[in-house]
Amino acid sequence: MGIVFVDIGISLDGFVAGPNARPGNPLGDAGTRSHEWMVPLASFHERNGGTGGERNADDAVLRRFFDRTGAYVMGRRMFDEGEIAWPEEAPFRAPVFVLTHRAREPWRRKGGTTFTFVTGGLDEALRRAGEAAGGKDVLVAGGADVVRQALRAGAVEELNVHVAPLLLGAGVRLFENLSGLGAKLEPGPVQASPRVTHLSFRVRR
Amino acid sequence: MGIVFVDIGISLDGFVAGPNARPGNPLGDAGTRSHEWMVPLASFHERNGGTGGERNADDAVLRRFFDRTGAYVMGRRMFDEGEIAWPEEAPFRAPVFVLTHRAREPWRRKGGTTFTFVTGGLDEALRRAGEAAGGKDVLVAGGADVVRQALRAGAVEELNVHVAPLLLGAGVRLFENLSGLGAKLEPGPVQASPRVTHLSFRVRR
Repeated sequence: MGIVFVDIGISLDGFVAGPNARPGNPLGDAGTRSHEWMVPLASFHERNGGTGGERNADDAVLRRFFDRTGAYVMGRRMFDEGEIAWPEEAPFRAPVFVLTHRAREPWRRKGGTTFTFVTGGLDEALRRAGEAAGGKDVLVAGGADVVRQALRAGAVEELNVHVAPLLLGAGVRLFENLSGLGAKLEPGPVQASPRVTHLSFRVRR
Repeated sequence: MGIVFVDIGISLDGFVAGPNARPGNPLGDAGTRSHEWMVPLASFHERNGGTGGERNADDAVLRRFFDRTGAYVMGRRMFDEGEIAWPEEAPFRAPVFVLTHRAREPWRRKGGTTFTFVTGGLDEALRRAGEAAGGKDVLVAGGADVVRQALRAGAVEELNVHVAPLLLGAGVRLFENLSGLGAKLEPGPVQASPRVTHLSFRVRR
């Protein structure tokens, strides 16, 4: 049985997306800069159907992430953006459970990704993702509001944050409206490169 | 000639103080928890006139901080809190330049701390601190608003953040209202213990 975890990139000032994030510009202005560290990496190329790329410590972090993740839970807005942007061979290659209010038939993509639409809320999505993960871990993929919902529900057992060396100055915060959460974190391994600092925490209550 | 730097503790969710921070409760509810990592350390004991304490990697980080800092710049509200709370032998042991609108004679404390009150703004405080630092570095000590003012002015050359493994959920943010800052950070050494993760960045423009 795997665990439920969060694995997300933020700027040093805590933003998952830059200013003016909206449908069609989901990461906001300059928001892609928080995620640039992944683009040169071999595991990123592979996952997107390419070859080549760097094999370094950042790549090992990303590769481990892909390897451990047996199923995904994501919000409907994140899915809506991706439905347009992801290639036919969507980069998850695993079951993805989309939180939505509107029922829809599962949507099967090449390469192993199936989007299943869950109308029963976060608990149901996590339960079904756990069953589908085949003993691997379940990622609460985002957006930020879904991550916060999972944190508030006490469902997140591990919190990985990839801190990009940027001050975006404004945008969409990851950590907001978590008053009274009372989570205690236990630091795990830290790893840094010139492009990004990987932090990992176990969440205790 | 030293550099101007920031060195400040935050929770993982970016707060320098918890909720309900106000005069008399400057770190807010539970806000001291972000700074607990320092308390057991030998260099912290020494700086506060005591003996004993742990000599470990966290202690080395704190010791280096004390050793490198030749002068301090701080806001008037931070000083007001400290004027009541700090012992007669104030823990700076160096010149401290306090940003204020009200002129006041320098206030000399035992142990090498002199508080000088600067009415000419941040630029003047940084210039005088630089002259007084004896070739060492100048710390922009806080509060958060003074740190942001220095960041916006482009005066900060190094930004050290000690991330406590906590989600305070609410409180006083360090990084706020920095829209348009456009600072690019260059990651330096990272160090982690079970109590705190030390991040260090060079600030480029």
